[in-house]
Amino acid sequence: MYLTFTQSTLRSFTQNIFKAMGCSQEHAILAADVLLKSDLRGIDSHGVARLSGYVRLWEKQRINATPNIKIVHETATTATVDGDAGLGLVVAPFAMKVAIEKAEKYGSGWVSVKNSNHFGIAGYHALMAVEKDMIGFAMTNASPLVAPTFANERMLGTNPMCYAFPAGKYPPVIVDMATSAAANGKLEIAQRTGKNVPEGWIQNADGEYTTDPHALKTGGALLPLGSDREHGSHKGFGLSATVDILSGVLSGANYGPWVPPFVAFMEPAANAPGEGIGHFVGAMRVDGFRPVKDFKTNLDNWIERFKASETINDSQKVIIPGEPEREAEAERTTNGIPLVLAVVDDLNAVAEKFGIEKLVADA
Amino acid sequence: MYLTFTQSTLRSFTQNIFKAMGCSQEHAILAADVLLKSDLRGIDSHGVARLSGYVRLWEKQRINATPNIKIVHETATTATVDGDAGLGLVVAPFAMKVAIEKAEKYGSGWVSVKNSNHFGIAGYHALMAVEKDMIGFAMTNASPLVAPTFANERMLGTNPMCYAFPAGKYPPVIVDMATSAAANGKLEIAQRTGKNVPEGWIQNADGEYTTDPHALKTGGALLPLGSDREHGSHKGFGLSATVDILSGVLSGANYGPWVPPFVAFMEPAANAPGEGIGHFVGAMRVDGFRPVKDFKTNLDNWIERFKASETINDSQKVIIPGEPEREAEAERTTNGIPLVLAVVDDLNAVAEKFGIEKLVADA
Repeated sequence: MYLTFTQSTLRSFTQNIFKAMGCSQEHAILAADVLLKSDLRGIDSHGVARLSGYVRLWEKQRINATPNIKIVHETATTATVDGDAGLGLVVAPFAMKVAIEKAEKYGSGWVSVKNSNHFGIAGYHALMAVEKDMIGFAMTNASPLVAPTFANERMLGTNPMCYAFPAGKYPPVIVDMATSAAANGKLEIAQRTGKNVPEGWIQNADGEYTTDPHALKTGGALLPLGSDREHGSHKGFGLSATVDILSGVLSGANYGPWVPPFVAFMEPAANAPGEGIGHFVGAMRVDGFRPVKDFKTNLDNWIERFKASETINDSQKVIIPGEPEREAEAERTTNGIPLVLAVVDDLNAVAEKFGIEKLVADA
Repeated sequence: MYLTFTQSTLRSFTQNIFKAMGCSQEHAILAADVLLKSDLRGIDSHGVARLSGYVRLWEKQRINATPNIKIVHETATTATVDGDAGLGLVVAPFAMKVAIEKAEKYGSGWVSVKNSNHFGIAGYHALMAVEKDMIGFAMTNASPLVAPTFANERMLGTNPMCYAFPAGKYPPVIVDMATSAAANGKLEIAQRTGKNVPEGWIQNADGEYTTDPHALKTGGALLPLGSDREHGSHKGFGLSATVDILSGVLSGANYGPWVPPFVAFMEPAANAPGEGIGHFVGAMRVDGFRPVKDFKTNLDNWIERFKASETINDSQKVIIPGEPEREAEAERTTNGIPLVLAVVDDLNAVAEKFGIEKLVADA
């Protein structure tokens, strides 16, 4: 059961919730923009469906609605930002702006972030660089859900990495991926619809493959990309470790099993070694390597050649990274954003608490 | 059947071959060092076993033994290097030195490379940065062997990416991985030993899973990390695409199916859009983000915590990325490097051609 909303309705509603939390007008607009971008791009797990989660963390005083976000360490092209426990939705764009400014001056800019919270979709931040004809990088660590190869313990988040490249006549190429075999959002969909998941996504409390999507609630864990050692799960683990080290260890944020949980009902770990969760973002000017026009001409050619790959089935073409999200964005910008009823109810419960006008389907 | 050699015997032999090709003393020493590092670290597929392959490419005039390697474009922290068709084994260290010098001055340095050849193991280059208390990055595109998700055509190399981090009391954390489900070297071992490979490594000419390790010779392809769409092969494809774009499209090298083959009996593609193969390397100063001591203390703690993960079987601990290679290096430095007889014969055939003293097992 879905209700459908225009982008502008969901956007004002979301802004109002953030303002009710005490966010500045500027931060409310930005945070809503990050969430809406996710819904528009079809990544329902990271959009307004998470809004009530942010509110609950704010209620527990784990999110600071009026953070003093600042650079605490820097060189010409590197910096560490302290997010002051603010919304990752505003902290990460701050960090990306710093990276872009450094890249404008020196060719590249790299910012590690500590003391932040969940930053929405990585693609939002990486795309900020693409708009300036730069290559964008964004990653974040996250609450531990994933067991390393051979482990029977949740040690890592689904730790996404994103790389975004500006093309010429085509939309940007955007690789934006969890480093686990399946994103947690896919598991949640299976839980909601009562379907089993494929072998290779999760293990149960004994460390065995299971198809039960609820196994995470009884001591199970998500598996790294590659699923098992034979198929390269040590590589998924290595990628996730890379995200964790660049985001957490490099910034002074938490890492590994100490990354604070997104859900407010779970308390952060005692004796945590760092501050909040960590991100890592970067930007490199394309014209730091070759003329933008030459790069874009070749990337357009790359896209055309890959789209024209010989296929196994005539009906299924090769998909350029970022293409499905772009198609969803075009479709939902026109036709509105569908939300499952449970999400709408959840959002309206928040609205009621804050005394804000409720959502009414209008698309 | 193995013969075992001391490191110094294999090193002088390899230097002599490169000198016989016309390489300078300096280049011969460096190129041999890169190959030996691979053999020492247990990555047999990328060590001296490849030496005769480099010689054959040189005979075909596709490798230039006396390249004029130079920067052709740069900003304060970015550069593009033209390898002048030299050995990747010397071109990539040149590029890494440029990246490190830029990082020393400005915090980070990033170098895209065109007109190069196979660069050995990515870890060698990334470790150059680690020695300077920097984080090292190295990747390269390679001859097309891998089919993107849904494709029945080899469009990408096994395109490795490497991230290397300096620790304190522990050895560096080194994530060095092919972005395919299995590296080509593993397939070659199965071919040699007549064993089947697991489902999920390769597809046959019809695009179906096969366990026949010879399927690549009859129109098959390696699969991206993730193996199939359900298990995230689009992510492995996305990572491989990232390596291809950073190494090939950004530098002006070839990319995708146009990357020239390593084997001399296959001709490079006609109408290739770029020059040679491409690499991408980078270095970031740890103290560009926080004091080196703090980072290393936390990374040591990270390593300890991950090594202490609860495990599924008592007998199999979690492996820190880079650990198996470091253990191999310690063992082989002491006990020598084993080479299969076929490789020794192949090397001695090259020695005979050049009139150089042959290899004799001495460890």
